[in-house]
Amino acid sequence: MRSKGFEGMACSIAGVLDAVGDRWAMLILRDLGLGLSRYEDFRRSTGVTNATLSDRLRQLEQNELIERRQYQTSPDRYEYVLTRKGRDIILVIQALLQVGDKWAITGEAGPPLKFVDGATGHGVKLALLDEKTGERVRMTDVRPRPGPGADDLVRWRVAKFENKSN
Amino acid sequence: MRSKGFEGMACSIAGVLDAVGDRWAMLILRDLGLGLSRYEDFRRSTGVTNATLSDRLRQLEQNELIERRQYQTSPDRYEYVLTRKGRDIILVIQALLQVGDKWAITGEAGPPLKFVDGATGHGVKLALLDEKTGERVRMTDVRPRPGPGADDLVRWRVAKFENKSN
Repeated sequence: MRSKGFEGMACSIAGVLDAVGDRWAMLILRDLGLGLSRYEDFRRSTGVTNATLSDRLRQLEQNELIERRQYQTSPDRYEYVLTRKGRDIILVIQALLQVGDKWAITGEAGPPLKFVDGATGHGVKLALLDEKTGERVRMTDVRPRPGPGADDLVRWRVAKFENKSN
Repeated sequence: MRSKGFEGMACSIAGVLDAVGDRWAMLILRDLGLGLSRYEDFRRSTGVTNATLSDRLRQLEQNELIERRQYQTSPDRYEYVLTRKGRDIILVIQALLQVGDKWAITGEAGPPLKFVDGATGHGVKLALLDEKTGERVRMTDVRPRPGPGADDLVRWRVAKFENKSN
């Protein structure tokens, strides 16, 4: 899938933002990650309007991030679950959570929500690792490089970075 | 700062999404992370309209994610840099990049952009670690817990997860 809203832009970041849609859709994915699955639960959790919720659910389904499943007949009722692809987004949601907690964005009371390892109960944290050695890498040591799918625009952006660093 | 668009919702995720604004703003932050700093560079890189770009730069400045600096007089010219808070967003951008690359969202040619450790040249990757031991934790082993700042809605969401798991 190539991002529609950003045509000609070879960018995985833009592509994911486009597949998700907007903040409401991201909050629906958050809720699915927390195990919520029903329309009324998304309504209650996010406070979104019916029109927006229906639209975002349809878009997430079209983009194969969620699946609709029937759980009751007469009357027919459906619930939603994350696809395998949709579950990948949890990485982004974890990053958003971690940044928001660092900023104390919800106030002085501390993080509203924590993620823990179910086995040990220890808190978990996203960190940058060296792909080869598994060692921690500091964000400030990270440099961009054009990848195999780079286009002129990507190469131009990375050259800007390199000019800046010299 | 409490998220304005999501009043009454104690959620760091919603808070960060609200502080950033939208996809265009996220792409501007991406570009700032790559070292771009000037209005015309953001225009070229994102393809955004002037009206939208001016608006998003103003919003990011108000939310203290970027700072405007004068780099030339007569005529006055300004550039933009990430604040310390703005640099934290790079974690989210890295997560978006990693997910998009996994989905091969930009096509078959491979990732357009890679991030490497400047010292070793090795690729880097976000991973979930145990906060205490530093060991890797699998995303599927992660469980939500109410944190100290949880409100009724957070507790309700987490209870939903626990009911689902039993």
